Amino acid sequence: MAPDFGLPANARSETLAEVGEIETLRQIFPRLPRAAAELLGPGDDAAVLAAPDGRYVVTTDMMIHGPDFRAAWSTAHDLGWKAAMTNLADVAAMGARPTALVVAIAAPLDTPVEVLLGIADGLRDACAAAAPGCGVVGGDLSVSGTLTLAVTAFGDLEGRAPVTRAGARPGDTLAVAGTLGRAGAGIWLLFRDGVVRHGGDGAGDPDAVLGAALRREHPDLIEAQLAPSSPIASGVDAALGGATAMLDVSDGLVLDARRIAQASGCAIRLDPGAIAREARDLLDIDAIVGDHAADFVLAGGEDHALLATFPPGAALPEGFRPIGEAVPVPAGGRPDALVGDRPYDERAGWDPYADWDGHAG
Amino acid sequence: MAPDFGLPANARSETLAEVGEIETLRQIFPRLPRAAAELLGPGDDAAVLAAPDGRYVVTTDMMIHGPDFRAAWSTAHDLGWKAAMTNLADVAAMGARPTALVVAIAAPLDTPVEVLLGIADGLRDACAAAAPGCGVVGGDLSVSGTLTLAVTAFGDLEGRAPVTRAGARPGDTLAVAGTLGRAGAGIWLLFRDGVVRHGGDGAGDPDAVLGAALRREHPDLIEAQLAPSSPIASGVDAALGGATAMLDVSDGLVLDARRIAQASGCAIRLDPGAIAREARDLLDIDAIVGDHAADFVLAGGEDHALLATFPPGAALPEGFRPIGEAVPVPAGGRPDALVGDRPYDERAGWDPYADWDGHAG
Repeated sequence: MAPDFGLPANARSETLAEVGEIETLRQIFPRLPRAAAELLGPGDDAAVLAAPDGRYVVTTDMMIHGPDFRAAWSTAHDLGWKAAMTNLADVAAMGARPTALVVAIAAPLDTPVEVLLGIADGLRDACAAAAPGCGVVGGDLSVSGTLTLAVTAFGDLEGRAPVTRAGARPGDTLAVAGTLGRAGAGIWLLFRDGVVRHGGDGAGDPDAVLGAALRREHPDLIEAQLAPSSPIASGVDAALGGATAMLDVSDGLVLDARRIAQASGCAIRLDPGAIAREARDLLDIDAIVGDHAADFVLAGGEDHALLATFPPGAALPEGFRPIGEAVPVPAGGRPDALVGDRPYDERAGWDPYADWDGHAG
Repeated sequence: MAPDFGLPANARSETLAEVGEIETLRQIFPRLPRAAAELLGPGDDAAVLAAPDGRYVVTTDMMIHGPDFRAAWSTAHDLGWKAAMTNLADVAAMGARPTALVVAIAAPLDTPVEVLLGIADGLRDACAAAAPGCGVVGGDLSVSGTLTLAVTAFGDLEGRAPVTRAGARPGDTLAVAGTLGRAGAGIWLLFRDGVVRHGGDGAGDPDAVLGAALRREHPDLIEAQLAPSSPIASGVDAALGGATAMLDVSDGLVLDARRIAQASGCAIRLDPGAIAREARDLLDIDAIVGDHAADFVLAGGEDHALLATFPPGAALPEGFRPIGEAVPVPAGGRPDALVGDRPYDERAGWDPYADWDGHAG
């Protein structure tokens, strides 16, 4: 059966099968934002978008029921919001201004149309909140046994060079915009306390009532996981501020810092004092993280903060705070992320194949 | 269990779960074609593409195991080929030259890596055959219970206006490039003779041995369905030849001609003599279509021929043959497609929600 995302039985709308593809699309389109860059919008074989500087930025990402979200915990609005935000963050991480999305949705035949409309609303609200002027220029609606969102996002570099992962140089300041650790703490909490256990093996089913209670009690952590707010505009600010390298922290601070190190051929030294400060801030936000605060900061993914390096002495753009520096690769070492002078030994980051137990919820 | 696409048991490679996401991507990427328009390729948060005339064409489409393909009949190479070709056709139908694809794949954990490599090979070979210079600039690999491909394709208008569906005017010649009816006949044949029936209700399971035999005996029809060849280069030729409207025939000639009629505010008259000629040609290709030949021509989808209108008297670009004309809307009538002077009464085209019986195969 299709996930109903907790819609009460008496509020359940007609299903995709009952309403049909064409009528469902007719209801969805007016809810979606128009893109300022749109030269030709939905309804033809393809859309046409403006690329004023003769280039465009492109990224694509899928969200899948089971590994990427559980219908017991996420609302339909959350799904649209998160699918937009994660892709917008990838565009922002190039130093580009997001201009447009195309969105393909595949859903079970018995999915309530209300769920698809909620996804559309989430896409719209994320664009409005994080990237005004960015809109949806096209899409596709299909049938699948597994609810799936595939978003492709576009951006405008506005004449600037793209900020890749490869430009960090020893001496550069490492800085971050956005939150660290909240989304990781949120998913930890959901899997710890939002699941109804069955049997003694620790497996269980995500539970809507438990999830809703957690969201009320720990809104900062749960919202960061289910409907993250990436500092999208800070991507352009970083580029204008001279950022030498940048990415969005999707898999954890250490793992993503390592990616900058490897692409740039340097080491990235996370400042232990800054990490301790971040951990204290996370603890202040929600004491439930307890002794794990630093681990969430270092290894928790999915906040979609922007992590960037700036030339030595450069003034950091508003919204960025220093968190370390780029340093030479230690003698005999390899490009890596270090906490102080040591590698971070915990399993760092999120392996989508290791963490899914098959219970889609 | 994941579809193995008929790989013999002793040739089955390791699975996605065993090999892991990163190593699988490492094996996939060298197989993919580079795009001539690529300024920054895979490996960063996003790719950067050239848009020399300051615009770009975008389209997206998903292919899903079950409604869109059956693993018993398609090879992995077919999937990659068809996913590329259908998106390239949408770009071509705007009069644009395809430049690049991004490809998101979601697969069950027990999918053999060989299947993912086969998909990559199909993507590459379709680009090489139909759109040289077009390459894959980015992607995403995820876990899902349902094998899913989401392709977004890009194109370059090279300074020309896009050819929409809305520009047909009474007196214009209607012309087609590519085949009509073969893919529809192919899927009819597969569902008629490629299924092992169980029970008396007509339901059944797609069968690999039966499918392979049909492909040997009826290669033109089955190939057109499983690995269609759209005349991609004819899209640019049509635009250069002054096409006033164009689309690719994905849902059937009548249904797609109606789309031109409705967008353009005219009627589209299919010439009965031309339809009869198309039906005879289809019968010559494979006599098994028998009395259904004209219906396959009129209502069979998925050949991805290009259907376009040209100004009265214009020389048709090579590859296009006349098949009708745009005419005024009859008094008291509505914009529609007509065969001769009459509407086509059969159910026209392909409704993805009506035709899926749930057997993924």
